[in-house]
Amino acid sequence: MSEVLIVGSVAYDGLKTPYGSAVRTLGGAAVYAGFAASRFAPVRMVGVVGSDFREDDLRMIRRAGINTDLVPREKGRTFFWKGRYEGDMAVAQTLKIDLGVFERFDPKITGRAREIPFVFLAAIHPGLQASVLRQMRAPKFTVLDTRDLWIKIAKPGLLKVLRGVDLVVVNDQEIRLLTGEMHLSKGARALIRMGPRIVIVKKGEHGAMMFGRDWAFLSPAVPLDHVVDPTGAGDSFAGAFIGYLARAGRVSPETLKQAVIAGNLVASFTVEGLGTSSLRSMSRPQLKKRATAYHRFASIPKVRI
Amino acid sequence: MSEVLIVGSVAYDGLKTPYGSAVRTLGGAAVYAGFAASRFAPVRMVGVVGSDFREDDLRMIRRAGINTDLVPREKGRTFFWKGRYEGDMAVAQTLKIDLGVFERFDPKITGRAREIPFVFLAAIHPGLQASVLRQMRAPKFTVLDTRDLWIKIAKPGLLKVLRGVDLVVVNDQEIRLLTGEMHLSKGARALIRMGPRIVIVKKGEHGAMMFGRDWAFLSPAVPLDHVVDPTGAGDSFAGAFIGYLARAGRVSPETLKQAVIAGNLVASFTVEGLGTSSLRSMSRPQLKKRATAYHRFASIPKVRI
Repeated sequence: MSEVLIVGSVAYDGLKTPYGSAVRTLGGAAVYAGFAASRFAPVRMVGVVGSDFREDDLRMIRRAGINTDLVPREKGRTFFWKGRYEGDMAVAQTLKIDLGVFERFDPKITGRAREIPFVFLAAIHPGLQASVLRQMRAPKFTVLDTRDLWIKIAKPGLLKVLRGVDLVVVNDQEIRLLTGEMHLSKGARALIRMGPRIVIVKKGEHGAMMFGRDWAFLSPAVPLDHVVDPTGAGDSFAGAFIGYLARAGRVSPETLKQAVIAGNLVASFTVEGLGTSSLRSMSRPQLKKRATAYHRFASIPKVRI
Repeated sequence: MSEVLIVGSVAYDGLKTPYGSAVRTLGGAAVYAGFAASRFAPVRMVGVVGSDFREDDLRMIRRAGINTDLVPREKGRTFFWKGRYEGDMAVAQTLKIDLGVFERFDPKITGRAREIPFVFLAAIHPGLQASVLRQMRAPKFTVLDTRDLWIKIAKPGLLKVLRGVDLVVVNDQEIRLLTGEMHLSKGARALIRMGPRIVIVKKGEHGAMMFGRDWAFLSPAVPLDHVVDPTGAGDSFAGAFIGYLARAGRVSPETLKQAVIAGNLVASFTVEGLGTSSLRSMSRPQLKKRATAYHRFASIPKVRI
């Protein structure tokens, strides 16, 4: 089993959805991805927190098997995001952002952490993603996430860092922005020509599609009766995905597909609770049970033509 | 192998999509469903055509293995629909409808046709659907399609006929209109309480979901690079679905799932050409090849939790 390095935001979130709200709850891409990945492999988290960061939260993160030695506490406030979801909760409305100490975030990877083989770069500025990659010593598999903001304001830097990663995770809007292609599989092929050899397109309630140069794979989303809070779904997906690969220790067509399914399964827990609550309380028997139900739901029989 | 009875419109369509157009091409729900079903089982078509219906088109239908004895030619014009698709072609804009002889359509099922075991009621008026059901002698499996128009203007009649069918095919908008549930699986369960024991929700490019009282199954859509004309996709799906079941001769969890996949596969050919052209020219080797590719794309491996 290999270790996973996860770089991204550690935050407090203010959340409001039709089904609940929280004033200041633990959040951030590295936190969601870290909790998810730690179910499968040891995690090294890279981020920054402010003087207001609660010791209890730090302990909770560590108890999950996440090493926080590379998450310094700096003077200032922890990154704060306040968002609201309405209706079908497809899109988060950002009500407030306070970057706090995250504004000067400059990830430093030191010592043995540079040799960690599996790397997840959450959707931070492409320049910081590139800096992390430069500090790593020949990682075995690198996954990059991004967001529309970086495609709009830092595209050249993003295109540069894309050339150096194995896999990129996007949603359908991002792939269109990045490639100009309206059609998902054409967009995926265009993106592969930009560097990464694998592309995952997250389609929310419609699951996730994974594309290689000459193949594609679809894993439907887990059907859920009740979504409470979509925050962190994508980061949980990516975290479980790379965690699964790290546990397997090898990247093959089979483990990649399994990792996508693991991502969907774990993300389905995340959205059932507010903030990180359901992701944290998810037990192994619950996850196993959902995996069994998922296979009943999504396994397709051979059709006789 | 059993026979399939298909009741619905036989029409001429005027089509305009970003990728092609046709002034007056063979169309109608019974035609698309008939061509699709006839790939798997013999088809008895029930409909009506006008004095303008071309003998060539009738011959083409018959050559596909479709019995048209219950498609009388009446004085007047054949049902004409003119529609246009733009952008992502998700919704057809209706530019013109001329019901012609279809206005007085009153399906008469006579003789041995009453004993056909597999019945597909395309989206005609619920009163006519009920009339067909009354004329049938204990069909083995009945599938009903409908559309938003009938839910809006003939809901009581529709609710009545729903009580007498085995399976209903809807899209996400229709299931919401019918049940008032925003959530697909809740809507499906509500619909099952209204009569049919199985519900299929067509999700277009996201595939089709099938629901029973305590189970669900998802078949993703076939990923396509180039959709030319979405007309008839739903009817082709339903036709191939019931044709597959009729060929199997039995309705089991396994054959139902296979039939959904067959529906997706055949519908994927339909939308690649204008009107019925690609559906008609689809060869068995092409269909087999696509089935193989589909299994590579949508088969999910067991995940190790």
